[in-house]
Amino acid sequence: MNTIESVAGFHVAGVHAGLKKNGKLDFAIIASDVPCVAAGVFTQNTVKAAPVLLNMERLAASATDKRAVAINTVSANACTGEQGMQNARRMSELVAEAIDASAEQIFVMSTGVIGTQLPMQKIEQGVSLASQALGDDWQSAAAAIMTTDTRPKQAAITVETEQGSYTIAGISKGSGMIAPNMATMLCVVTTDAELSPALAQSSLGAAADVSFNRIVVDGDTSTNDMVILLANGQSDITVEGDAMSQQFQAALNEVLTSLSKQIVRDGEGVSKFISLHVEGAHSDEDALQIARTIATSPLVKTAFYGNDANWGRIIAAAGRAGVPFDPDKAALYFAVGEDAVDGKLCLFANGQVAAYSEEDATAIITQDDVTVSLDCGNGDGSCHIWTCDLSHEYVSINGDYRS
Amino acid sequence: MNTIESVAGFHVAGVHAGLKKNGKLDFAIIASDVPCVAAGVFTQNTVKAAPVLLNMERLAASATDKRAVAINTVSANACTGEQGMQNARRMSELVAEAIDASAEQIFVMSTGVIGTQLPMQKIEQGVSLASQALGDDWQSAAAAIMTTDTRPKQAAITVETEQGSYTIAGISKGSGMIAPNMATMLCVVTTDAELSPALAQSSLGAAADVSFNRIVVDGDTSTNDMVILLANGQSDITVEGDAMSQQFQAALNEVLTSLSKQIVRDGEGVSKFISLHVEGAHSDEDALQIARTIATSPLVKTAFYGNDANWGRIIAAAGRAGVPFDPDKAALYFAVGEDAVDGKLCLFANGQVAAYSEEDATAIITQDDVTVSLDCGNGDGSCHIWTCDLSHEYVSINGDYRS
Repeated sequence: MNTIESVAGFHVAGVHAGLKKNGKLDFAIIASDVPCVAAGVFTQNTVKAAPVLLNMERLAASATDKRAVAINTVSANACTGEQGMQNARRMSELVAEAIDASAEQIFVMSTGVIGTQLPMQKIEQGVSLASQALGDDWQSAAAAIMTTDTRPKQAAITVETEQGSYTIAGISKGSGMIAPNMATMLCVVTTDAELSPALAQSSLGAAADVSFNRIVVDGDTSTNDMVILLANGQSDITVEGDAMSQQFQAALNEVLTSLSKQIVRDGEGVSKFISLHVEGAHSDEDALQIARTIATSPLVKTAFYGNDANWGRIIAAAGRAGVPFDPDKAALYFAVGEDAVDGKLCLFANGQVAAYSEEDATAIITQDDVTVSLDCGNGDGSCHIWTCDLSHEYVSINGDYRS
Repeated sequence: MNTIESVAGFHVAGVHAGLKKNGKLDFAIIASDVPCVAAGVFTQNTVKAAPVLLNMERLAASATDKRAVAINTVSANACTGEQGMQNARRMSELVAEAIDASAEQIFVMSTGVIGTQLPMQKIEQGVSLASQALGDDWQSAAAAIMTTDTRPKQAAITVETEQGSYTIAGISKGSGMIAPNMATMLCVVTTDAELSPALAQSSLGAAADVSFNRIVVDGDTSTNDMVILLANGQSDITVEGDAMSQQFQAALNEVLTSLSKQIVRDGEGVSKFISLHVEGAHSDEDALQIARTIATSPLVKTAFYGNDANWGRIIAAAGRAGVPFDPDKAALYFAVGEDAVDGKLCLFANGQVAAYSEEDATAIITQDDVTVSLDCGNGDGSCHIWTCDLSHEYVSINGDYRS
């Protein structure tokens, strides 16, 4: 996956507005010169942050006139009552004034501690600095939306069509409070292709479902998760018809999957990236339920951290997933690498331990990249998700997050 | 709650059979001189250990003839196939021979690593030593069933009736892989009262539901969980009629609740005991769903560990519980102590932070015993559960459990 060079008609900036200490980048704007078709997916948590509620309202009002997304860190503007809604609106007004748009054309995102009000003087400073710095520095924009992330996340793809090429480019952040069954953490995806609002929304929903909704760091779902797609048409390529739509969907899936995996790899305290493949379940939904139960099990995650090929914990987690699972039909495999299909070592089959050497299993589990495959032997349902271990560092990071 | 002195007609022993290193107690027998009425509740994990399957079969065959429970540590005898079932049967035969009973009268329990076969020579040694040592040393029996537990767990109560008194006494173990929605970890409860099989089973189910099914250490449900109740009638008191049945139920609830709380207090790496009270939910089931989501949230648990009164994570967890929850109607309180009702500090109300001082909140959350109360403001549903923090030590214990 490429890093972002530029996307026609989009300009971005990441600046230091005084929200974070030590002069770190903490505020970003992603803006389009012309109105965009927009789509969004939002957290399924019933406790929604003010910026989530505001953007849902604005997307419902119009999906064809959006100009920019502004993002602040440090305060999540969640559980902040009417004052929080007013601050989110005010933030959008400041951006609108700065780029000659109306407030209704602006999306806002916030990430950080729940329950604190936005420091509006610093937000004002951020809008002022970022709007003057708008350019092609996507790396700074990606860096300016980080919280406990240790590195910026970005992905871009160029799609070749008969009429020429267009670009899809996105940035995201997220490191803790990451679980599937949600929209995602913060992510802005831009494209210079021209899309209808219906195609934009359906493509984004489908792509989020196979990317952000397939990752687990710790099993918690944030109040602030959202992905916004902006399409400004400045490549002069119109995506229409089945072939082009499928091509766009495939490219968008690639960008969002890359960003999702980057989030897991940079998850809080993560030392190991686990590709978890479940197949042979009664249905895809059952496969996902089994995968999620395994991926959120503290016992499974700590065993990964400890380089312990403790397959019993994985089978036990599958057994409590609340869907049909018969250990006598199941088989479990480990392999080295991301989404690995070759070199699989069978650890469990026919209801009991398989004939494998602990040395071979340990040689796999000590790698940074491990694929765990569970065949339930019970049907055609399958899914892939990406997850990680649970380390001492995760506990340290979250034991003193606010201090 | 009292420690156990004796229960008429029951004799117990905990011995070292060579399963654990360093001469630690690792094998126990709880036996009755005469046949007992028996009841049992078993893990709801679809992956059930051989001893669970064997006991379910034996209880179904007869609930009026049971003589003893034998318990080994180190190997869980789960995911061990047909050999595992044969070993569980053989273990019961050895006990039957030693105490002059038939194998059908014996229950067996196992706890330890999943996937390893029982070391039958050591089991034979354990049965031999324990059956010769049978007496009133309940503390040794409780110690001999420990795995990562740091202390034995026992509880007893004497019930006074018009015809005299009887005793209910239980021992249990459990420290990790602890979650509600299950039977329990291993627990044996004895009584010298006389009970009908129906009363024994219904009382045990009801008591487990308000005790073991209300605790969470890490959210994982074991393959081996079970509670067995043995009633031998040797007190010459027969529990019958509504008044005596209710009295028995209340006493049994007390014993099992005490054992449950002892499990949480001795949970893996636990530094803080949290009483979690949810009320005002749409239904009791919804209250439980919200409580379980909070109690299994890694972010909530690490904040407790870090002495961080991070109420936002609790509200965010409630919001993703999958049941109706409206933050604008909810209120959250902290107080010092186990199941505390006085001295509550309000941290969150009306959709936003309440007017409290961070110092007051920190003064509460730094205590070892904290009650967290969430009023959902949405109905009459309520529940109490008991949980704990997630510490560095939990990760250490489970990162190298098998090594």
